[in-house]
Amino acid sequence: MSEPLDLNGDPVALLRALIDIESVSGNEAEIADRISEALRPYGHLEVIRDGQVIVARTDLGRRERVIIAGHLDTVPVADNLPSRVTDDGGRSLIWGRGACDMKGGVAAQLSAAVRLTAPSRDITWIFYDNEEVEEEHNGLNRLAREHPEHLDGNFAVLCEPTNARIEGGCQGTMRVMIELTGTAAHSARSWMGHNAIHDAAAVLQRLSEFQARQIEVDGLLYHEGLNAVMISGGIAGNVIPDRCAIEVNYRFAPDKSPEQAEAYVREVLAGFPVRVTDVAPGARPGLDQPAAAEFLASVGGEASAKFGWTDVARFSAMGIPAVNFGPGDPSKAHADDEFCPADEVLICRDALVRWLS
Amino acid sequence: MSEPLDLNGDPVALLRALIDIESVSGNEAEIADRISEALRPYGHLEVIRDGQVIVARTDLGRRERVIIAGHLDTVPVADNLPSRVTDDGGRSLIWGRGACDMKGGVAAQLSAAVRLTAPSRDITWIFYDNEEVEEEHNGLNRLAREHPEHLDGNFAVLCEPTNARIEGGCQGTMRVMIELTGTAAHSARSWMGHNAIHDAAAVLQRLSEFQARQIEVDGLLYHEGLNAVMISGGIAGNVIPDRCAIEVNYRFAPDKSPEQAEAYVREVLAGFPVRVTDVAPGARPGLDQPAAAEFLASVGGEASAKFGWTDVARFSAMGIPAVNFGPGDPSKAHADDEFCPADEVLICRDALVRWLS
Repeated sequence: MSEPLDLNGDPVALLRALIDIESVSGNEAEIADRISEALRPYGHLEVIRDGQVIVARTDLGRRERVIIAGHLDTVPVADNLPSRVTDDGGRSLIWGRGACDMKGGVAAQLSAAVRLTAPSRDITWIFYDNEEVEEEHNGLNRLAREHPEHLDGNFAVLCEPTNARIEGGCQGTMRVMIELTGTAAHSARSWMGHNAIHDAAAVLQRLSEFQARQIEVDGLLYHEGLNAVMISGGIAGNVIPDRCAIEVNYRFAPDKSPEQAEAYVREVLAGFPVRVTDVAPGARPGLDQPAAAEFLASVGGEASAKFGWTDVARFSAMGIPAVNFGPGDPSKAHADDEFCPADEVLICRDALVRWLS
Repeated sequence: MSEPLDLNGDPVALLRALIDIESVSGNEAEIADRISEALRPYGHLEVIRDGQVIVARTDLGRRERVIIAGHLDTVPVADNLPSRVTDDGGRSLIWGRGACDMKGGVAAQLSAAVRLTAPSRDITWIFYDNEEVEEEHNGLNRLAREHPEHLDGNFAVLCEPTNARIEGGCQGTMRVMIELTGTAAHSARSWMGHNAIHDAAAVLQRLSEFQARQIEVDGLLYHEGLNAVMISGGIAGNVIPDRCAIEVNYRFAPDKSPEQAEAYVREVLAGFPVRVTDVAPGARPGLDQPAAAEFLASVGGEASAKFGWTDVARFSAMGIPAVNFGPGDPSKAHADDEFCPADEVLICRDALVRWLS
């Protein structure tokens, strides 16, 4: 038998214990068991287990309710378990798969959850599975579908890594395919054909010259991007290619709906055969909400825009403003050398407690 | 037992008989057996069998010797055997695998070989295997290595399809690889990376604007070509690509050595990382040679440049001027619907006989 997780003790020790329970997507049962077991003794929380999702709620009849969520799964282990600690000029760093994305956030959540016995707003703590894999497996997605009542709230915080700063909303992302067609011919008689790869010059030139906009939304600056991410063309070394396909990724600020984003891409790439293959909407930061403003004040510092796509967009789609706030450097997410600074776990835990006390 | 091939009869009937002996590369034994057996009765020819290569020579002590060569193999059968004949407004067309490339030429060779009992120049007739596959299997290549004496001559004719016109020499071909490198980054933070696919714009623009030259060599006009034939790049749909590879094919006139061709490509593509991966030299038409001039006069009409690479380059590399001359439309070579017009078989047979009588 393992030691029970100590939620009331040192959150950094808790983080190490969480890292050492391997929980690659699809294998979250043990960590979910251990967390629900550790939460049950706390009488101020109603703990609901649903598959590998844990919901822990206060029900004090407060006027507002906030949702604070984090995922339990990690990307595959890369020889980076068990956890270890190093000292970086007096600053403790915790290393291991999931340290950054996002067991540091989960540790801060759990540590705050047991301390906030009488919060100023009701709180729904959510711990979910399968965030790192296909959308269809996402635990938060399933919860929204099967138990939307648990996602009812005025404001949401996702404890994804943000260097313990508030990152508001997230960019949307759209993929489009441009398929150019030509006429095949033997390359010894190239003038009999039409080279589709040569036609890609104009598309790539357009993309290369494109100046991505920086757009302010609810006070945060979003840096867009429009990039070719894949190209392929060609039949054989002696044939003029009759096809060249370019996949383009547009990251757009949350001032635009998917429809507006598509219209913009079509305008930028006018004259080329643009086909949209995939789109995920962005999320507005919603920092004008009272709950968000108080949260900002508790954390201090400046909020900034989140660049990548995260589950905050899921809340946004349900009309709930949401931000990211968690320990760890987001650029270390999924890295083999991911780590989480110990002090940021404490900073996040303390900010949550201060905000909701 | 099959009927013996009738070399002295109708060359079109002979062509059909040859087509009906399936001889996909590697399977030339039967056709080589049947041809050597049919040639042996003709006392003016010394018939040498070496593997699936047949050499049939006159030895009359003439001052000059010409080589007239053709390959026996075909590309794979595509439901286009046995042969059939159609009537195209009074013109007979012979259909079937190998009709065009190049059993029409072989039929013209064989029919001429048995008629030219006392030619004005000594003749080495060559029939060889494995032309349609890798260089290392090529029968003419093996003959050059093991019995170079059979390739000794003043002038060579390859009976590859040319619509029964003389096509002189052949283009050289060179392949170069351009590998562009960038810096990978998450596409949500594209300004942190450097997009290698976008850099391909400049390369493709250069190729797209390039005006291929038409170069006269020994009186024939060669149309060059410089084309991207393959492109690939990209890591994933959300990553700024750090690599893009472009394969370029240069078809060059036989006024240039491979070294000169490479220098030219490097000049055209200056500023890009050009790496030569493959080169085959071209062949000058050699129409200034007396044997060639007489051949031209016998055939009549205008000679033109050969576009594709053929085994004439092999003769050229040995210092023997060589031309292509055979029945059939070269653009039908390898096509499933390949055919050979009956009249062109006769035109070619008669031109060879007239030239060397």
